[in-house]
Amino acid sequence: MIIIMQHGTSQKDIDYVVSRAQSLGLGTHLSQDQGQIFINLIGDLRAIYPSALSGLHGVERVVTLDQPFRLASKDFKSERTVVSVGEIAIGSEQVVVIAGPCAVENREQLMKTARAVKDAGAQMLRGGAFKPRTSPYSFQGLGEEGLQILAEAREETGLYIVTEVMTPEQIPLIVQYADVLQIGARNTLNYSLLHAVGETDKPVLLKRGMMSTVQELLMSAEYILSYGNHNVILCERGIRTFETYTRNTLDINAVPLLKELTHLPVLVDPSHATGKASLVNAVSRASVAAGADGLIIEVHIDPENALSDGYQSLNPRQFAELMGDIKRVAHAVGRYTTPEKQYVK
Amino acid sequence: MIIIMQHGTSQKDIDYVVSRAQSLGLGTHLSQDQGQIFINLIGDLRAIYPSALSGLHGVERVVTLDQPFRLASKDFKSERTVVSVGEIAIGSEQVVVIAGPCAVENREQLMKTARAVKDAGAQMLRGGAFKPRTSPYSFQGLGEEGLQILAEAREETGLYIVTEVMTPEQIPLIVQYADVLQIGARNTLNYSLLHAVGETDKPVLLKRGMMSTVQELLMSAEYILSYGNHNVILCERGIRTFETYTRNTLDINAVPLLKELTHLPVLVDPSHATGKASLVNAVSRASVAAGADGLIIEVHIDPENALSDGYQSLNPRQFAELMGDIKRVAHAVGRYTTPEKQYVK
Amino acid sequence: MIIIMQHGTSQKDIDYVVSRAQSLGLGTHLSQDQGQIFINLIGDLRAIYPSALSGLHGVERVVTLDQPFRLASKDFKSERTVVSVGEIAIGSEQVVVIAGPCAVENREQLMKTARAVKDAGAQMLRGGAFKPRTSPYSFQGLGEEGLQILAEAREETGLYIVTEVMTPEQIPLIVQYADVLQIGARNTLNYSLLHAVGETDKPVLLKRGMMSTVQELLMSAEYILSYGNHNVILCERGIRTFETYTRNTLDINAVPLLKELTHLPVLVDPSHATGKASLVNAVSRASVAAGADGLIIEVHIDPENALSDGYQSLNPRQFAELMGDIKRVAHAVGRYTTPEKQYVK
Amino acid sequence: MIIIMQHGTSQKDIDYVVSRAQSLGLGTHLSQDQGQIFINLIGDLRAIYPSALSGLHGVERVVTLDQPFRLASKDFKSERTVVSVGEIAIGSEQVVVIAGPCAVENREQLMKTARAVKDAGAQMLRGGAFKPRTSPYSFQGLGEEGLQILAEAREETGLYIVTEVMTPEQIPLIVQYADVLQIGARNTLNYSLLHAVGETDKPVLLKRGMMSTVQELLMSAEYILSYGNHNVILCERGIRTFETYTRNTLDINAVPLLKELTHLPVLVDPSHATGKASLVNAVSRASVAAGADGLIIEVHIDPENALSDGYQSLNPRQFAELMGDIKRVAHAVGRYTTPEKQYVK
Repeated sequence: MIIIMQHGTSQKDIDYVVSRAQSLGLGTHLSQDQGQIFINLIGDLRAIYPSALSGLHGVERVVTLDQPFRLASKDFKSERTVVSVGEIAIGSEQVVVIAGPCAVENREQLMKTARAVKDAGAQMLRGGAFKPRTSPYSFQGLGEEGLQILAEAREETGLYIVTEVMTPEQIPLIVQYADVLQIGARNTLNYSLLHAVGETDKPVLLKRGMMSTVQELLMSAEYILSYGNHNVILCERGIRTFETYTRNTLDINAVPLLKELTHLPVLVDPSHATGKASLVNAVSRASVAAGADGLIIEVHIDPENALSDGYQSLNPRQFAELMGDIKRVAHAVGRYTTPEKQYVK
Repeated sequence: MIIIMQHGTSQKDIDYVVSRAQSLGLGTHLSQDQGQIFINLIGDLRAIYPSALSGLHGVERVVTLDQPFRLASKDFKSERTVVSVGEIAIGSEQVVVIAGPCAVENREQLMKTARAVKDAGAQMLRGGAFKPRTSPYSFQGLGEEGLQILAEAREETGLYIVTEVMTPEQIPLIVQYADVLQIGARNTLNYSLLHAVGETDKPVLLKRGMMSTVQELLMSAEYILSYGNHNVILCERGIRTFETYTRNTLDINAVPLLKELTHLPVLVDPSHATGKASLVNAVSRASVAAGADGLIIEVHIDPENALSDGYQSLNPRQFAELMGDIKRVAHAVGRYTTPEKQYVK
Repeated sequence: MIIIMQHGTSQKDIDYVVSRAQSLGLGTHLSQDQGQIFINLIGDLRAIYPSALSGLHGVERVVTLDQPFRLASKDFKSERTVVSVGEIAIGSEQVVVIAGPCAVENREQLMKTARAVKDAGAQMLRGGAFKPRTSPYSFQGLGEEGLQILAEAREETGLYIVTEVMTPEQIPLIVQYADVLQIGARNTLNYSLLHAVGETDKPVLLKRGMMSTVQELLMSAEYILSYGNHNVILCERGIRTFETYTRNTLDINAVPLLKELTHLPVLVDPSHATGKASLVNAVSRASVAAGADGLIIEVHIDPENALSDGYQSLNPRQFAELMGDIKRVAHAVGRYTTPEKQYVK
Repeated sequence: MIIIMQHGTSQKDIDYVVSRAQSLGLGTHLSQDQGQIFINLIGDLRAIYPSALSGLHGVERVVTLDQPFRLASKDFKSERTVVSVGEIAIGSEQVVVIAGPCAVENREQLMKTARAVKDAGAQMLRGGAFKPRTSPYSFQGLGEEGLQILAEAREETGLYIVTEVMTPEQIPLIVQYADVLQIGARNTLNYSLLHAVGETDKPVLLKRGMMSTVQELLMSAEYILSYGNHNVILCERGIRTFETYTRNTLDINAVPLLKELTHLPVLVDPSHATGKASLVNAVSRASVAAGADGLIIEVHIDPENALSDGYQSLNPRQFAELMGDIKRVAHAVGRYTTPEKQYVK
């Protein structure tokens, strides 16, 4: 942390800032640039509230130089984290694909979709039983019935289950059914919920908020990690910008950037990032080419009749085509989507 | 809702869209513009998922023409809502001021601040007992002890208490102490929480999310209203933009816009909207001039030593100056900050 | 400027960075924080390209601590700049109002509007003769004929003329007619144009780009100032955000912020900042309350039939009402809109 | 265009709107939805200013249903445009790579860079002779001397030259040297400049403004096309968002979206879109995978000593690695970067 003093600050102000820093247990080191004083702070800055210093008389601003996240950083852990879900290893050389409908609507819809995505090569099944909806008048999900249907689909297809958790109270129920707990984009900054999933031992798929910076996403991951759950999977799903043709703007830069900043695996959700089924294939290819560890794709057996997000869902035929396309791109970047033995089949 | 068909769509596609709409219980009305077909839908559109139609073959897009919020709209209720907290009427001619620290840090800090803001003319006291913090390593609030201190301050000063609720489980505890429940900007889209406060009878101060549109803010209000709690107070607190000098960008347009769209009262939080104490006075004057029904201002007895948000907190002297300044602006727009009888005093 | 070295950088890398800085004529000063090295640079940093150092081996990043603008800063000039246009002093205690149509459409439209805004108390007349339009198929302005009509309106009403310059070549023509040259929001970063108006002696009204930061706006002002023209008036006109109800989002924070950062006068354009006539009055009051030195308002004698921007233009009656409303707000903040002698009349 | 009337509008208002539309030469068609009236307008809407109708009494809003661009749309021209520069075909199956420094700094720097990018497989050379810089104190380019150096590099290497045009007056000079005229991101909405390049017969590389929507980019292309120059190449180069780790946010969605909306070729500039050399390779792979027709990459013989943009420039070794990487990705999506005969070599 560096305190930048205003031009022409008095010695008295400087002395006071130094004494305050020292009273906080910090060492100080003064330097000067064209008459402007800089005070470098030395010590355990994690215990310091920047506001304890930024408001002092004569202070122009306080520059924090360190990354605020620790456990999520590569400084803390240099080898990449691989999150295991059964025999699936997220963050390995395999590009993992999670597919399924936005919401579990009924048994038939889910079972048909599960079989279709399994056939096309997906490893995991997504599907919301509890749905956060902008309107209180929209379909809110089937609840536990939805979870039971998901479990049945796992039984039949062998696909692992990813489903969203909206509140701490839902966790005891959902952990009985789900293989991976999803934190949705509206809850990226819901710290009570992050705390609660941090105390489980289930892998957590943490979506970036539509309004979250990369740093905030990593801070949210830090919450989960700091409560002892180290199986965190990040997911870029598009951010909100001024562009209106698409539902969100996929921040493709974030994929290699996150790989630089953290050891955690990084997935991409092209369905929400575009909001338009016709763009999902191209953006999925781009994500794999950029180094994503996997994709989460909305697939519906009948998008025209979906109760939610139909306009961004692929039908089974489009999804199978996508699986073929990303397989080639994965190979071009030295990865694979399906283990060799499955090729034989 | 209007379905816009692609140029050159076949009659078969059109017929299918019409039949689908009719199977959903809607009437249809076709029109044409330079060879492009438009299908107007007639009936109870609240029951219709747009995706049920937007994905059909030949459909270019679906335009929804109605506001998606009902109970929050002026169509539903034309007279303005006045939320009563004791003798205070939020949404009346009085510009109500809520002031206090970001967080309750200890008894002395809060009591001193409470006395100072009371003396300067505030009607209500803010202060967080449970704090949502970006970092798991930051101060998270005093919890119930903080609530008890707030209650003691109310006892002594007569100021009503506004404090933040972060999870549904905190509600039974917090309603015992608070006069107004605050939903913070990170929870504007936390529908479980909106549902839960909607089932209480406490007034709710609903902050706009840093990346929520005005329409989304109104949809979140709709959640609370739809569960039976009609005492909702909206609060503009700045949105996230590309500007980096300030913490957020106060959307001053939203003040008169919300007045056009809804009957609910509208407050402004200039402290978070600027993130800089030196800008709070000017922006508070602007908010009152634009028609805000009140302000919520961070005041700390000693901002230099605040445990959070010190850089945006006013000290008691600055707050007293602000109260004098907004009084004059309130009069200029036909309102008042302090009832006449108090002037005499 | 401070160079932040990566954790664990070698002494060789540090030595090389230091030698590079010294070869650029800079002094260096090393400090250390938890094992991380910081190199403060001392000397005339204006001659230094940050990229000359940021790409060196071992460098994490380079933090520039100074404001990049000089002539526009209060460090350079502490008293406020007052730009004189005839007897009008922009940046004085008077809140100056510029009003008129988006575009000069024809003689009758302009003369009627000019008389109406004069009667209501405006000091200056706006009107585009050359119009930047998003579509090549839209009305592009009357050109010199428009300038002649503006001059005629000045002759009759005494209102000073503000009109937009789009290219350097238009300047010799426009300076013959205009009292103030306007740089539109699409040209805030058009450096050739900034250079060209910097070489005239006409006051320049510089609009903030819809996606320019406050710092970029000040850098654009710096261009004009650096070529010798010191009569620069800044204008906040709304920035582009994710909100779609309004055309732009007025950054009201920028008004007091610019007052802190620069000595130049600051106007607000509520018409473009909202894009909605019904919001202009409230936002104008807010701007004056926040400390704006003036307003620029779109007024059309017949908004329903305007060739451009009719939806955000006030009619003469609405404009007269606005002038009355802001007069009261100006008084509340210790300023005035019309000199006393005109009150008598 | 559809006019949506307010709920409860009077018949008189409706009649007046209809008569106004008819006086503008338009047919009208009324429909109704839950008591709300919609007036569809029929006829040549290109001649109509929406504001001519949106401000009328009783009108809630006007919805325009058509794309505002014509010549750039696939409705106008269904086969893809291929822009030829010598034997290079931009928009063909070949993924074309333009590489070179941000600015031409001196003969040696440019010649060395040109040879390096040629050897690595680039087809075209970029380099600014006239530079738009945020600060008037920064290096502004070598001017004509820079153009001569570029021409010399073409002579020696056979690389075609892409260089930026900042003002209409520079065009007669620059067309003598350049093979492709570049319109930079700050000038995307500089209509005078678009008009001027529209009257040349040189291919134009039109960059998306950091603040431009996809629709605005297409409208800017429309300007050039409407003046008779059909050789327009679009370039996505990142947009401005709230994310601060990266210089801009590459809108990867825009690549397949533009392919849906227009017949024009689409390039990507990963250097500006990320602002960070370490991210350029991954984002280039992503762009090719998403369907981009080419890339424009900043390469500098010695990025540490670049006069501008060094932090985002690749060195020759990094660029050669990138060329190898995108070759594999291009093959994975059925395209190629270098014609077969060159493989033999």
